[in-house]
Amino acid sequence: MSARHVLALSGGVGGAKLAAGLAAVLPPEDLTIVVNTGDDFEHLGLTICPDIDSVAYALTGLNDVVRGWGIRDESWHAMAMLRALGEDDWFNLGDRDMGMHIARSWRLREGATLSEVTARLTRSLGIVHAIVPMSDGPVRTRIGTAEGWMDFQRYFVAEQCRPIATGVRFDGAATARPSLAFEAALARKDLGAIVICPSNPYLSVDPILALPGVREALAGRRVPLVAVSPLVGGASLKGPLGKLLHELGRPVGNGSIADHYGDLLDHLVIDEADAADAGPLRDRGLCVTVTGTVMCDAEVRERLARVALSVARIETG
Amino acid sequence: MSARHVLALSGGVGGAKLAAGLAAVLPPEDLTIVVNTGDDFEHLGLTICPDIDSVAYALTGLNDVVRGWGIRDESWHAMAMLRALGEDDWFNLGDRDMGMHIARSWRLREGATLSEVTARLTRSLGIVHAIVPMSDGPVRTRIGTAEGWMDFQRYFVAEQCRPIATGVRFDGAATARPSLAFEAALARKDLGAIVICPSNPYLSVDPILALPGVREALAGRRVPLVAVSPLVGGASLKGPLGKLLHELGRPVGNGSIADHYGDLLDHLVIDEADAADAGPLRDRGLCVTVTGTVMCDAEVRERLARVALSVARIETG
Repeated sequence: MSARHVLALSGGVGGAKLAAGLAAVLPPEDLTIVVNTGDDFEHLGLTICPDIDSVAYALTGLNDVVRGWGIRDESWHAMAMLRALGEDDWFNLGDRDMGMHIARSWRLREGATLSEVTARLTRSLGIVHAIVPMSDGPVRTRIGTAEGWMDFQRYFVAEQCRPIATGVRFDGAATARPSLAFEAALARKDLGAIVICPSNPYLSVDPILALPGVREALAGRRVPLVAVSPLVGGASLKGPLGKLLHELGRPVGNGSIADHYGDLLDHLVIDEADAADAGPLRDRGLCVTVTGTVMCDAEVRERLARVALSVARIETG
Repeated sequence: MSARHVLALSGGVGGAKLAAGLAAVLPPEDLTIVVNTGDDFEHLGLTICPDIDSVAYALTGLNDVVRGWGIRDESWHAMAMLRALGEDDWFNLGDRDMGMHIARSWRLREGATLSEVTARLTRSLGIVHAIVPMSDGPVRTRIGTAEGWMDFQRYFVAEQCRPIATGVRFDGAATARPSLAFEAALARKDLGAIVICPSNPYLSVDPILALPGVREALAGRRVPLVAVSPLVGGASLKGPLGKLLHELGRPVGNGSIADHYGDLLDHLVIDEADAADAGPLRDRGLCVTVTGTVMCDAEVRERLARVALSVARIETG
């Protein structure tokens, strides 16, 4: 059995794009995409899983590439009614997106696991690759601020990341078990590589690493672990990574990404705009590949996926 | 205190139109609209109250008069997504309508009563008149068929009333208490009239009458009880009343409506197309008014509301 299975760890937008690239170049049996669920939340009685949906929409091409989240050509009538009814409107939900949340919420309430629901929803959308929640248990990312700990979506969407972050924690992570499919992927005999997609290490990847046994499993890996940096030109394309690094007292650059993953990381793929980071990273013993990482279209996503896989010595067709 | 308060009992479409007419000619303090909840059901994890919504949409003018249900200029994107996800699509829900169900469902799940939620939703829509569910407890209308008892919406929407009905029952009615506002309206010292709107007596009005104490309170009334017949030209404009009367072995005509309400009824308003029914009805001691009852626009709704109120000796402005 050749070791060709790829385990990808992903958050939302940037991570979802690379996950779509990986899915475009790998057959379904060779890829497991494990997705952060620390951003999940209950809103208006619905269970919303932003990162799972971002990955699912990216793989189907339903994603809105201009807005950067949700479904393209979306309409907003249910939300307009909810607003008219005096309900919270700080988290905008499109009509088709709402269909996802309704289907997910009622099946969860009927007793299905998040893994089961995610498998069902993604298959229904025509996705043949495995999109797997990191855990079926609730993990909720919270941000430390001057006003206390804040729910992730409150910080991220309602407050638009304005509060100064003093810390990040993952409520429930210590007792949440990785999903069965995540555990199975970690234990696969044919595992050939682990890819950390270009998502925020603190907010999107750390919740995955915080689950019991995950960090240990990755530390004991026998296969290359490749991360694609979410930084481009020393800043994050989307989201608060640059601001967050600054507030946590860390230099805004790929050195901090490498520091953060430490011994887990074998190879970091960085953007050509950050080519100057390569020397110092190599000096500390890390393998570095410099390439274009701005995934503006499907072609670039696939090319970047091939780069990440080739440095892990995974062959693609 | 002049006895000028009007208690209206309503089901969906036809009843909702007269309820809107009553609201157009009576000030808010003079009208309580009690609405059937026997048609309510749980679907895709949402609590759907078709008759309450029909009345609310009719009073705001949001209702689609061509389709006869739901909201006009509606879109259907959430439902399209739910269909794509393999969820049941036999009960079609528009996007704005979905906003109502989401808001209602999550507030019910948070512990609010249906009365509280209905008051909140209708006020948010700008409705100043009281729309009151008949009960906060679950009552579920079921239809007897050759295949056994069938949930109302399954019979009404999925099966489009095709099964031959052998009976009707109201699960939960015997132990459900009328809502506080319904009880309060029945007990008002200034109650001046009770109006049964032109809804299906068996399916939409009987659930209300089946609640403990309601039939007794109506039997002991000291004010006129006026019903507007749902029949026009010996048939129902919408819905299965004609078919149902036939299947239950009763003549399809206003005699059956009068029989059904029996001693509860003081005055029946019938359509001019059924003028021939007036004589026989009067012969048995019932007061009858013959007028146009097809509420094709707001003007006719208001005129019919004034007719119903005038026979009950309620003055309108």
